Amino acid sequence: MKELETSINIDVRFSETDAMGVVWHGNYLKYFEDGRESFGIKYGVEYLDIYKEGYFTPIVKSEINHKSTINYGEKVQVRVILEKHYAAKIIFRYEVFNLTTNKIAATGKTIQIFMNVIDRTLELIKPKFYEIWENKQNWKEV
Amino acid sequence: MKELETSINIDVRFSETDAMGVVWHGNYLKYFEDGRESFGIKYGVEYLDIYKEGYFTPIVKSEINHKSTINYGEKVQVRVILEKHYAAKIIFRYEVFNLTTNKIAATGKTIQIFMNVIDRTLELIKPKFYEIWENKQNWKEV
Amino acid sequence: MKELETSINIDVRFSETDAMGVVWHGNYLKYFEDGRESFGIKYGVEYLDIYKEGYFTPIVKSEINHKSTINYGEKVQVRVILEKHYAAKIIFRYEVFNLTTNKIAATGKTIQIFMNVIDRTLELIKPKFYEIWENKQNWKEV
Amino acid sequence: MKELETSINIDVRFSETDAMGVVWHGNYLKYFEDGRESFGIKYGVEYLDIYKEGYFTPIVKSEINHKSTINYGEKVQVRVILEKHYAAKIIFRYEVFNLTTNKIAATGKTIQIFMNVIDRTLELIKPKFYEIWENKQNWKEV
Repeated sequence: MKELETSINIDVRFSETDAMGVVWHGNYLKYFEDGRESFGIKYGVEYLDIYKEGYFTPIVKSEINHKSTINYGEKVQVRVILEKHYAAKIIFRYEVFNLTTNKIAATGKTIQIFMNVIDRTLELIKPKFYEIWENKQNWKEV
Repeated sequence: MKELETSINIDVRFSETDAMGVVWHGNYLKYFEDGRESFGIKYGVEYLDIYKEGYFTPIVKSEINHKSTINYGEKVQVRVILEKHYAAKIIFRYEVFNLTTNKIAATGKTIQIFMNVIDRTLELIKPKFYEIWENKQNWKEV
Repeated sequence: MKELETSINIDVRFSETDAMGVVWHGNYLKYFEDGRESFGIKYGVEYLDIYKEGYFTPIVKSEINHKSTINYGEKVQVRVILEKHYAAKIIFRYEVFNLTTNKIAATGKTIQIFMNVIDRTLELIKPKFYEIWENKQNWKEV
Repeated sequence: MKELETSINIDVRFSETDAMGVVWHGNYLKYFEDGRESFGIKYGVEYLDIYKEGYFTPIVKSEINHKSTINYGEKVQVRVILEKHYAAKIIFRYEVFNLTTNKIAATGKTIQIFMNVIDRTLELIKPKFYEIWENKQNWKEV
């Protein structure tokens, strides 16, 4: 498998906690989104770049596995890993790490597809611009 | 002052609470929004109705005054009152009532303006369709 | 497989849409939560009931599969199905149905575990109160 | 008036936009919260510091005035200004600046009070620890 990755630190918002005193489970999808945006900036494939090429990439599947909790005030790091695949899909894996407790808080995965901005149809093969982008990256073999 | 009003019951979501065990203060703006939508349905001025007339009505001011807290599991009612004004503004007041504790949880206010969908410019006088709508309503003098 | 189910209608909030004009993908977890709460009320197993028995039931896994989009103003129904299992887990499946377009918007799944309120340890066998509750239900064989 | 201030940059999340393509108005309260937390870190008065002193500081009033919109992908800066007052209140003002359009997006204000953690009663005079903290700061006269 070929992979590209990045990591970001997240400041947990008070509004993201719930009455159990921990980050509400659904807010991890926001942290995943933060991770994807940071990945996009680092590697030059931001949403708006993709949009300019005539595509948007809606999420068709997302998955979160919770391992431990995050309390307000704890430091969090999200590791985002893009997997290279033949299919016209963007597949990210995530690891949410609680830097304060030194524990994995969650792992996750999202799958995105390419849709044409004009007619909102699914692209069955990878857009050319994306393949060019893929070929320029320095993928890590794992 | 001439007024129109409606009330709705809100089910507090677990995700709306925070680590203090109460509804996070910013989520009251969602309850206000629920109230406005309910008002729109009752009186035939939903966002989409207004949009079809060529306008959208962004919020230019919002205000929340918190009086007591809402815990998860408590029953909440939002009272929404539209004030009639000469200006081309939509001014709503809100009362969030905690039915479980029998206390006012919050009061609030929002001001919306009319903007033209096409050129995104501010309407300085009330759109005709809105004046017609106003004239059909059975306003309560208070 | 034995199952219990309920359905609820959801009013999509404007604040739940995103810049693509559709419900932001992560907000489906809020709809799932709405569904679980409605299920809890219908069958007498609300969060607070469970809490009074000395347990809370954190989500350890959640999964959403998106099939089509939901626009603001569209009517949505969530079907929530509890699966009966031997393990000390609460496993729900979800179907989010767009009543306006007559299409499945998403399917999903969550897994919850039982944790002891006092010492925050995982319960490896089903709590007695829950087994009693299970035995009283009129499960549908599917 | 004596003031202390700080500024932070905000990355607008896709999930914070709405179907109008701009940041949903209620999300500004999250940006204000981000600003307060940053202020707390800079000046040594984080929520958890205050909590350890036996107080929490719920928001009793919040206000947002919208001047222009923020689109996804635009850079945002929040300026947070603490006003010094005799009353036992924490009064912050906010300016949300859209760095991309070079326009003020919003201004705002929040008022917090001191509540005793133990008995959840309102403190009518400033807690001693807070007065000590105030006296150590290098306030700017404006």
